[in-house]
Amino acid sequence: MLYFVGLGLFDVKDISLKGLEVLKSVDIVYAEFFTSKLFGSNFASIEDLIGKKINVLNRQEVEEENIFLKKAINCDVALICGGDPLIATTHTDFLVEAKKKGINSEVIHGSSIISSAPGISGLQAYKFGKITTIPFHEENYFPHSPYLAIRENLANNSHTLVLLDIQADKNRYMSVNEGLKYLMKVKEDLLANGKKDKVTVDENTLAIGIARVGSSDVLVKAGKIDDLIEYDFGGPLHCIAIPSKLHIVEAEYLVEICNGPREILDDV
Amino acid sequence: MLYFVGLGLFDVKDISLKGLEVLKSVDIVYAEFFTSKLFGSNFASIEDLIGKKINVLNRQEVEEENIFLKKAINCDVALICGGDPLIATTHTDFLVEAKKKGINSEVIHGSSIISSAPGISGLQAYKFGKITTIPFHEENYFPHSPYLAIRENLANNSHTLVLLDIQADKNRYMSVNEGLKYLMKVKEDLLANGKKDKVTVDENTLAIGIARVGSSDVLVKAGKIDDLIEYDFGGPLHCIAIPSKLHIVEAEYLVEICNGPREILDDV
Repeated sequence: MLYFVGLGLFDVKDISLKGLEVLKSVDIVYAEFFTSKLFGSNFASIEDLIGKKINVLNRQEVEEENIFLKKAINCDVALICGGDPLIATTHTDFLVEAKKKGINSEVIHGSSIISSAPGISGLQAYKFGKITTIPFHEENYFPHSPYLAIRENLANNSHTLVLLDIQADKNRYMSVNEGLKYLMKVKEDLLANGKKDKVTVDENTLAIGIARVGSSDVLVKAGKIDDLIEYDFGGPLHCIAIPSKLHIVEAEYLVEICNGPREILDDV
Repeated sequence: MLYFVGLGLFDVKDISLKGLEVLKSVDIVYAEFFTSKLFGSNFASIEDLIGKKINVLNRQEVEEENIFLKKAINCDVALICGGDPLIATTHTDFLVEAKKKGINSEVIHGSSIISSAPGISGLQAYKFGKITTIPFHEENYFPHSPYLAIRENLANNSHTLVLLDIQADKNRYMSVNEGLKYLMKVKEDLLANGKKDKVTVDENTLAIGIARVGSSDVLVKAGKIDDLIEYDFGGPLHCIAIPSKLHIVEAEYLVEICNGPREILDDV
């Protein structure tokens, strides 16, 4: 038997009772933390909680060698990860592989950035369009696609949840500041290439920076990109929401809870 | 102090350890279940778990009288609900009201249909467009908007998560079958009104019916609408996903895990 157990958003106490029961009952617990990360906890505190050792797998051991799948043929095995277990694409693939090998599997869901960030941003969940992710800017890799995704959502009157890159193996977690700078760099590129008509997001665009969702130290701050781009959001994980047209209830939340400028209320 | 505690997807064991600690520690626990419902549990089992009585509020007591807000001025109060606490729009409004009254508040997130249903459907979370909800068809109320939302998402090459109406006070929970019939009725209306060009979803459209996410009895079944419209999905809660163009990994999941027809693989 193979269990996919989501640990939830932030620390060891975000796991569900159901997930904890499973981790206590199985023979072996494997972890992969390259697709997500719990910031409020370390492995030792999870091991204390479940009363057994966690076997940490690297990407190759998870994706190529399928170590946990091989074990699950004869044992009860759990694979843990941060957030909800099925948000990472590879995990739905593992469900397929397990089925083909005749291994029963069960998913224990967890709280996820996909549902929690829209909520805590004060924006209505049903008004979000496609999610986009900003990758780290590498020498030969600087896709404009996150900017264009926001642009398309705005054209469809949809909010955008912007996830920020995680390179857990290098201990790199993109900040709101880095994410906004990335978007402004795309804007500069578009202007430099004479594509002024494609510029929809600039320094005056309203954005919401979100840090440490799921912790008691959560921070949600609304403002023009210019006002957020150097703002100190503190430790990871961060993400961004870019609102399209606001409902009055959303605007009030951005002013009252997210300390956004009061002129937000003038535009609704 | 006011806590918003999400109970998670399905039963009493979907609450997080953090949520359970809060419910054990506060002075009063209020519940509202008209925006969501836990199917695997009753109040008694939650009361047993947390060791105190739950005060169930009706819509008026929650939205007009703000009973829990008044109590939170002098006591530690928790408001519980199914899923994640901020998915219901009213709850972000309560955060604003609490702030205005000088009441500190904290959100304890839970697993939500918004993140779990995309995952369990095998479709990639970042390819979903706007969520839509199908309401119960009333004598003078039959909006075409859910159908048109799916149509718009398909035009943008986005999958759609279709939530189904809940009228908990009347013990009515829309089934996948009812939801699909609603969509086919809209299609008939469009044809009857000479709007054939607006018809994008019909009996041959691929859909995924999802029942009881978060339980060990979860059912996910892919097929043409014609093949699902009378299919028995069992007890609530149900929802639907309508895929746009599939990636091969998504298609394999629909065939292997969701028992979809093998021709799905021919179209990717």
